Amino acid sequence: MAEAKVLSGAGLRGQIAGQTALSTVGKEGAGLTYRGYDVRELAKDCLFEEVAYLLFYGELPTQAQLDAYLQRLQGLRDLPQALKEVLERIPADAHPMDVMRTGCSMLGTLEPEHSFEEQLDKANRLLAAFPAIMCYWYRFSHEGVRIDCVTGEADLGGHFLALLHDKKPSELHRKVMNVSLILYAEHEFNASTFTARVCASTLSDLYSCITGAIGSLRGPLHGGANEAAMEMIEKFASPQEAIDGTLAMLARKDKIMGFGHAIYSVSDPRNEVIKVWSKQLAEEVGDTVIFPVSEAIDQVMWEQKKLFPNADFYHASAYRFMGIPTKLFTPIFVCSRVTGWASHVFEQRANNRIIRPSAEYTGVEPRAVPALAQR
Amino acid sequence: MAEAKVLSGAGLRGQIAGQTALSTVGKEGAGLTYRGYDVRELAKDCLFEEVAYLLFYGELPTQAQLDAYLQRLQGLRDLPQALKEVLERIPADAHPMDVMRTGCSMLGTLEPEHSFEEQLDKANRLLAAFPAIMCYWYRFSHEGVRIDCVTGEADLGGHFLALLHDKKPSELHRKVMNVSLILYAEHEFNASTFTARVCASTLSDLYSCITGAIGSLRGPLHGGANEAAMEMIEKFASPQEAIDGTLAMLARKDKIMGFGHAIYSVSDPRNEVIKVWSKQLAEEVGDTVIFPVSEAIDQVMWEQKKLFPNADFYHASAYRFMGIPTKLFTPIFVCSRVTGWASHVFEQRANNRIIRPSAEYTGVEPRAVPALAQR
Repeated sequence: MAEAKVLSGAGLRGQIAGQTALSTVGKEGAGLTYRGYDVRELAKDCLFEEVAYLLFYGELPTQAQLDAYLQRLQGLRDLPQALKEVLERIPADAHPMDVMRTGCSMLGTLEPEHSFEEQLDKANRLLAAFPAIMCYWYRFSHEGVRIDCVTGEADLGGHFLALLHDKKPSELHRKVMNVSLILYAEHEFNASTFTARVCASTLSDLYSCITGAIGSLRGPLHGGANEAAMEMIEKFASPQEAIDGTLAMLARKDKIMGFGHAIYSVSDPRNEVIKVWSKQLAEEVGDTVIFPVSEAIDQVMWEQKKLFPNADFYHASAYRFMGIPTKLFTPIFVCSRVTGWASHVFEQRANNRIIRPSAEYTGVEPRAVPALAQR
Repeated sequence: MAEAKVLSGAGLRGQIAGQTALSTVGKEGAGLTYRGYDVRELAKDCLFEEVAYLLFYGELPTQAQLDAYLQRLQGLRDLPQALKEVLERIPADAHPMDVMRTGCSMLGTLEPEHSFEEQLDKANRLLAAFPAIMCYWYRFSHEGVRIDCVTGEADLGGHFLALLHDKKPSELHRKVMNVSLILYAEHEFNASTFTARVCASTLSDLYSCITGAIGSLRGPLHGGANEAAMEMIEKFASPQEAIDGTLAMLARKDKIMGFGHAIYSVSDPRNEVIKVWSKQLAEEVGDTVIFPVSEAIDQVMWEQKKLFPNADFYHASAYRFMGIPTKLFTPIFVCSRVTGWASHVFEQRANNRIIRPSAEYTGVEPRAVPALAQR
């Protein structure tokens, strides 16, 4: 083995592990871009499906392409009976990300990717099916209902809300779900995306890559910050309680979720977008607690630690105002990020070398195996 | 973002991505060692469970520890009814690695790892349950039989053969299965193990890490070389046919599986072990074709390309002589490697930083989002 090179940072921090044309994160003056477009601009007027199309196919769709794409995805929403039967066997107290991981893996046994020529078909299938995987399990296990996985909703954001609440969503809710799915769609070489790329580098199938990525997103250091933020926000009944409570948490050096970012150093461009929408939702539902409490925590974190809210913090309240159970926050992330993950798999496959780093050995020196009786 | 460093090799080749005390691969004069022990020595006299114990707990077990460990694993072999029902819903033509991936993920929904204090329990559970996950699905889907997942076999190698063949294995077969499971147990930062470590670095649960690793092992550039070797060996009816055929494949620049290695440059220490056992099995079954054909291919590859057989090549014939269907070769790899994967997860958790590299951006420059009607 050739002499291996020791990287300066643990966790490969700041080390280039490959190339991508999909996004920039924290690049000077550009914030977060998907294929060159500022995510804030995309979130202003686009449907999530336009962004999915951009990531998968390389360019934003024309009106005709978008219409065809929406129709195509609508036809891919229902789940095979065997998958429904599997979801019915997952207990109500299971971790919802375990449900997404198992649902994705099971779909791969039923509708395998036979060759890479099918990769876009399979990516679109997963994109269209994830809201039903999540909601079929949730409503069966929590409400005892076998839902119809097909709705008349044109877009995936509206479709998800309709599956969850069994009614047509308001236009405001539909808009916010689209914005949210756009904001979470892609984020360069984060741990779950890198998991998908390592898996793809063995030339494994798309379902394996996405299943692995879900497993990594499940980790509390990665996905799940919006759930943790919600749990914290809920503890406080007023802004003053939130100020006192946050100061006390800081004094105890408790971890406060939803602030700061590994890559962004000044602000998270996704935050300014979702915060505006969360405020509008708060007004719609007449909230006088959750949004003011969120702002109070935000203010304390800035004053005390110069830490800014990241994408997750105001997502917590926004989702809550739309009546989404906290345990589904991270699974929604999957419904969105599958677009980024799959696009990275395509990119890895197009210019592949197996990802196989080396390790620094820190164990014991060579030794002889003692006979069982001599140990 | 700080200026990122471009790595010299694609696929992180030769780059240190972390530390391990578990194994050395291709280290000068040491070949493959597990916690300092030469794998050839371990394969001589040990049960696979001794090696699993070594990897999980740090030292080889005493006789009393081994007896207790064997008994403990025996008690962890049966599958929950819900998992059996899931396996029954996976079609006979599914990829067997998709079955392992889904079985592992489903078990994680039924018996979750609630805290890292349970990590050894869950690793032992997966180790004990994988043979049944594989064989329950295989025999149900291929033979229509609902097998009893409990056997009276003391060790996992014998247990697997008994589940598959529905009879007590010969002592020779039991021995070879143990050897094989030992040889495949651990191999440093290969792609599947690195997948498990990336997942572990988000502090996700053990099932997610192992599910992701299975997905990566599924790739044809990683696991599966022994299956491909078997398919090639089977094509030839005599050593002369094999010589001619191999020369023709080389002339056509066909990829020939089971030779050479990304890390080993002179020989694969696992090969000399399994080759001896394959020869002995060949004698037992009175084989006059498969082993001589294998040797003929081996000889041509050395003479023509100076390429040596790796661990996978003689595993193909060895498994065949024991009546194991080719499609189960890579799932057996899972039954073994789960020990290495889980040990790497423990190691990552003990000294963790989230694995989040950077990417070199090769995409388009910032651009404005055109209105839908203007595209």
